[in-house]
Amino acid sequence: MRFSIIAKVLGVLLMLFSLTLVPPTLVSLWYHDKSHLSFLMAFFITLITGLVLWFPTFNIKQELRTRDGFLVTALFWAVLALFGALPFIFSAASSLSITDAVFEALSGLTTTGATVIVGLDYLPQSILYYRQQLQWLGGIGIIVIAVAILPMLGIGGMQLYRAETPGPVKDNKLTPRITETAKALFVIYLTLTVTCALAYWAAGMSLFDAIGHAYATVAIGGFSTHDASIGFFNSEAIYIIAIIFMILSGINFALHFTVWRDRSIKSYWRDPECRFYLTMILLGLSITIGYLYYTNTYNLSSSFLVGSFELVSILTTTGFGVADFTVWPTFLPYLIFMFAFMGGCASSAGGGMKMIRIMLIFKQGIREINRLIHPNAIIPIKVGSKTVSDRVVEAVWGFFAVYVICYVAMMLILLGTGLDVTTAFTAVGACINNLGPGLGDVAANYSSVNTPAKWVLCFAMLLGRLEVFTLLVLFSPMFWRR
Amino acid sequence: MRFSIIAKVLGVLLMLFSLTLVPPTLVSLWYHDKSHLSFLMAFFITLITGLVLWFPTFNIKQELRTRDGFLVTALFWAVLALFGALPFIFSAASSLSITDAVFEALSGLTTTGATVIVGLDYLPQSILYYRQQLQWLGGIGIIVIAVAILPMLGIGGMQLYRAETPGPVKDNKLTPRITETAKALFVIYLTLTVTCALAYWAAGMSLFDAIGHAYATVAIGGFSTHDASIGFFNSEAIYIIAIIFMILSGINFALHFTVWRDRSIKSYWRDPECRFYLTMILLGLSITIGYLYYTNTYNLSSSFLVGSFELVSILTTTGFGVADFTVWPTFLPYLIFMFAFMGGCASSAGGGMKMIRIMLIFKQGIREINRLIHPNAIIPIKVGSKTVSDRVVEAVWGFFAVYVICYVAMMLILLGTGLDVTTAFTAVGACINNLGPGLGDVAANYSSVNTPAKWVLCFAMLLGRLEVFTLLVLFSPMFWRR
Ligand SMILES: [K+]
Ligand SMILES: [K+]
Repeated sequence: MRFSIIAKVLGVLLMLFSLTLVPPTLVSLWYHDKSHLSFLMAFFITLITGLVLWFPTFNIKQELRTRDGFLVTALFWAVLALFGALPFIFSAASSLSITDAVFEALSGLTTTGATVIVGLDYLPQSILYYRQQLQWLGGIGIIVIAVAILPMLGIGGMQLYRAETPGPVKDNKLTPRITETAKALFVIYLTLTVTCALAYWAAGMSLFDAIGHAYATVAIGGFSTHDASIGFFNSEAIYIIAIIFMILSGINFALHFTVWRDRSIKSYWRDPECRFYLTMILLGLSITIGYLYYTNTYNLSSSFLVGSFELVSILTTTGFGVADFTVWPTFLPYLIFMFAFMGGCASSAGGGMKMIRIMLIFKQGIREINRLIHPNAIIPIKVGSKTVSDRVVEAVWGFFAVYVICYVAMMLILLGTGLDVTTAFTAVGACINNLGPGLGDVAANYSSVNTPAKWVLCFAMLLGRLEVFTLLVLFSPMFWRR
Repeated sequence: MRFSIIAKVLGVLLMLFSLTLVPPTLVSLWYHDKSHLSFLMAFFITLITGLVLWFPTFNIKQELRTRDGFLVTALFWAVLALFGALPFIFSAASSLSITDAVFEALSGLTTTGATVIVGLDYLPQSILYYRQQLQWLGGIGIIVIAVAILPMLGIGGMQLYRAETPGPVKDNKLTPRITETAKALFVIYLTLTVTCALAYWAAGMSLFDAIGHAYATVAIGGFSTHDASIGFFNSEAIYIIAIIFMILSGINFALHFTVWRDRSIKSYWRDPECRFYLTMILLGLSITIGYLYYTNTYNLSSSFLVGSFELVSILTTTGFGVADFTVWPTFLPYLIFMFAFMGGCASSAGGGMKMIRIMLIFKQGIREINRLIHPNAIIPIKVGSKTVSDRVVEAVWGFFAVYVICYVAMMLILLGTGLDVTTAFTAVGACINNLGPGLGDVAANYSSVNTPAKWVLCFAMLLGRLEVFTLLVLFSPMFWRR
């Protein structure tokens, strides 16, 4: 590890992040909500720390190498969460403990959307705006990293995408890839956000709420400016806009780029992962809507609207709510919750294991069965016309297994801190899948969860966002050798 | 599929099974418990069905092929459970419904040990004896199949054991392998049972109870002749004998064979799976005993005795009980329950995923991490001195994933039938791991579970006993082609 180059990158990152504290300061001044000093303090602390890290290293000309990508990616979320927590700590209005502030900031940046705050409707606008903006920044952050860095690191089979990314590819240096790719992706991300915000505004939200919810929608974040989430607006039009933009935001942004470049909307259906994603949504919708209507939980039109909203919100791991799906009959809450393990497509801001991996697990499972019947046959696994290498197959299997094992370990620790089974099981699931709401005591918010459990859940959010392996690699002694 | 040869095998199997109804008939006559007619009726029905299947096919000289092994193995448990249920249906004393009778018989034969009967202490001796004997038969059945057939079928990586089995190996014909291997394994199984029974008897059990519990111990079955299970005897000596024989019975029987042939007890520790198994037991014991003592749940000596008994009983998937571990503090019940997913060693009567697979999953997980750090290195996975092939690696990963997916699917169905989360989660776990007791409503017995749920749990027991894939293969259209 070359710490000076990593210090330089972190320094630049913090200086850039400090700039993102300017908009909430302006919001505070605009609304006279008396929180501008909190943001200014956080701004200076972040900027100065960034300068201190950057200054001794500014004339270092080393390039980041592939392997440094693990550390930079992990530090991106860990360090930004610490500095991002500052305004929550300084603000008298939110007055969060350090634990709560870090939890809230990390939940925002990882686009998890789990909140420890009750009484959102009474918070200063600047704090509300800042939470939404954290998600938006976290969203573009993970998309750029997923498209530009993860395929090169080969995390959990993501080397599949190595050849497909926009921008120069064959290079082993990270920086040019990131800047080129980031530009293209940011334009798409911004376009989606602006369109979504205009749609919300047109449908009746205030401009403030429209921008805030567009941030959280496109980032698959799920933070809201109201305790009642999107349900606050009680508007069919807004629900439908949210459903459409959640589905769009769950699609691979490299695929959005292809569609935009080729001006061909058919590419969505031609892409195997996107086709699988849309199929899973249709499957989930049929079961949810059908079962809601069959059990007389809602009338037909409400079953459609509310069922679609909740299913899409959980499956894409957005986590917005318009109704309390946790009280729906028998298996439905857990089934819907299980869809969050699928999550969005790779290279979106969605959480979960990602559709591509679930699709490969299905295909690989069927191959294992067919191999038993024909032990000597060579049965390739294909994604589209591409044959998947054994290395990818093993990486995907391994990803699934390590995901499940980490899940169980964290759940046992949460039980040890005194949480009940439903809460422990779903809190870990909601955090590792970057979903947000769970069942039991964490159906609405995480305010009742004890402090040690909150730190475990912070780890879960980070683990999920970093595709498990980026974080686990850092615990391997082999990583730190040489 | 050649149905005539399979009919012949089933015919022979049923005729043999009918003979096992003679001992309980004799027990009934000895104790004058008025149940002998139930057993005689079951005997004749089974014998005649066997004859009807066998007679038209007796001069067929075809050999069973490897691929027929899937169907024969699956039918072994499914068909024997149906006929094994007859005495429970006929007996006025037990008077079980068809569902309950099949559940109880399958639970016995798969050595799960989940029971729907409350009031064991008041049942006729012959019925009690018969339940214990079902487990004993199921135990030797799975051991023979695991040693002789599963390695050839290559289920979930078990081709690892292909070269190690006693008896002729290179042959593609099933019959000679089975008879040769079965003899050697049966001698070991019988020796363990007799020793265990004598020990129980010497420690104060009645001869009847000693034989019955020896059956259930060596088969990793967990059925008891008392509602209070082994706790009924309230004897330290009996607890310790049970612990020792549960640990012994959880070891690979092919390894027992090696130790016996080479007269070298060191082979136990030289065997990588057995070493891992003993290490996991020590790990589980340390946590359980330490936490029980630390939380003042028991005094030091009781923490040792009761903690060891419950941990070994659940980890080996025996399912005997001397105390209600489900009320132990915070994470301990779930942690202990999780150990049942490891289960015994391959080629024992133990359930769970088997120690060898858990060991491989650990090694494979670490390899995946190291591969990320050194993408171009070739990192072999070794079991002892043997390198594990990629095919085995993929099969083990696949086994784990399919296990988890089947688990979740069955749990959702159970929730749909109205069970609560804890009960649904642990009932599936207790059945797919062939463990027996769960938490929640199924901590003591399964009498309160609804009928559809019982059938799902029957499927779970069968799925676990058949190493998942043997059963899933039968649902593949490719299997039935040609
Ligand atoms: K989310
Ligand atoms: K058992």
